[in-house]
Amino acid sequence: MAAVRKLYGSLNSPATLKVMACLFEHDLEFEFVPINLDAGEHKKKPFLYLNPFGQVPVFEDGDTKQFESRAIIRSMAHGYAKEGQELIYWDAKEQAMVAEWVDVEDHHFEPPASKLIHELLTKPKKGLSPNEEVVAEAEAKLAKVLDVYESVLSKSKYLASDKYTIVDVLHLPNFHTLMEITQAKKLIESHPRVKAWCTQILARPAWSKVLHMKEEAQI
Amino acid sequence: MAAVRKLYGSLNSPATLKVMACLFEHDLEFEFVPINLDAGEHKKKPFLYLNPFGQVPVFEDGDTKQFESRAIIRSMAHGYAKEGQELIYWDAKEQAMVAEWVDVEDHHFEPPASKLIHELLTKPKKGLSPNEEVVAEAEAKLAKVLDVYESVLSKSKYLASDKYTIVDVLHLPNFHTLMEITQAKKLIESHPRVKAWCTQILARPAWSKVLHMKEEAQI
Repeated sequence: MAAVRKLYGSLNSPATLKVMACLFEHDLEFEFVPINLDAGEHKKKPFLYLNPFGQVPVFEDGDTKQFESRAIIRSMAHGYAKEGQELIYWDAKEQAMVAEWVDVEDHHFEPPASKLIHELLTKPKKGLSPNEEVVAEAEAKLAKVLDVYESVLSKSKYLASDKYTIVDVLHLPNFHTLMEITQAKKLIESHPRVKAWCTQILARPAWSKVLHMKEEAQI
Repeated sequence: MAAVRKLYGSLNSPATLKVMACLFEHDLEFEFVPINLDAGEHKKKPFLYLNPFGQVPVFEDGDTKQFESRAIIRSMAHGYAKEGQELIYWDAKEQAMVAEWVDVEDHHFEPPASKLIHELLTKPKKGLSPNEEVVAEAEAKLAKVLDVYESVLSKSKYLASDKYTIVDVLHLPNFHTLMEITQAKKLIESHPRVKAWCTQILARPAWSKVLHMKEEAQI
């Protein structure tokens, strides 16, 4: 049977890996359709028919196509919620907190995290030197965000609540990569509750499945 | 009776005005608590107890406090939906499109719109010259976004669907301000469907109430 669900994306794109982790959390079968970002495939037709803004991932589910990773994840977590293991809340007040923290990841965590990864991992791999000024600024911003996370995690087990939600899922790819960078790992480890939470979420079986898929693609 | 709902923010903050428009759309009474951004009130205690990330607006509704404007608007549109005039959908597939376009406004429309407003309106008011390079880049990005909007608006009456939703609400403050900038107005007007949609949404009574509140504050 042909897969009814298709994930168009790249294993080098954190946004793609977020959606992939969410698919595994919901035990959903899907076909992964790799889009070559280095070749600029996402900025050309036919990909632009899937997403006119030229970004991965795009998720196709039967006759529905959706882009914007956080929107895909919200819809998936509502539409395919596993009873008793929902990654969202049905209660409006509790879901309001999830909505708030999805936007915190988007606006506060990801920008400095991406910058650090770009400067300290991506650029050196290409033989380029990191811009020390950008690194210092991003590190200071990330430190402030982790201070808030540390405080929040003294009151709840996970970031938006006492249960694992899409908010935690959204943090997986960037935290995984930050832990590979000595400077960033040190920063994370200076926040004991963040470190413990990070270790716990990175141990989710769904995330191991994502990493396994990445490893297989590299063989 | 003391207001049970409080909106902490600034009349100079597009994010505050978005939430305000949403409050008026839902006929919700609220007390507006001005936060002086020029004095950096949002970066100091006691405001940091309301939002540790130091940004306006914050919405207080009874014993619930929420920050991140888009999260507030999502929660409000679900929690206070007016029957037959909902700004969201209850149907999962239709709501998936709303979720997607909320993120388009966030990631594609607002960044170049804000940059243009900053360079061509805010800076000249302070006697500073716009950075022509930044202007050119932002204008080119905004033009591409409006090209997509123009195409989308040939298929649906509003941006995410055939009905007025939170996606349209989110665009109000920046479109209103862009129309005050000759160069941006020209760009919008070169997209006939965008221009018609823009005129229509800016005529919403809820938006007039926001503008009225701004005018009264300036007297």
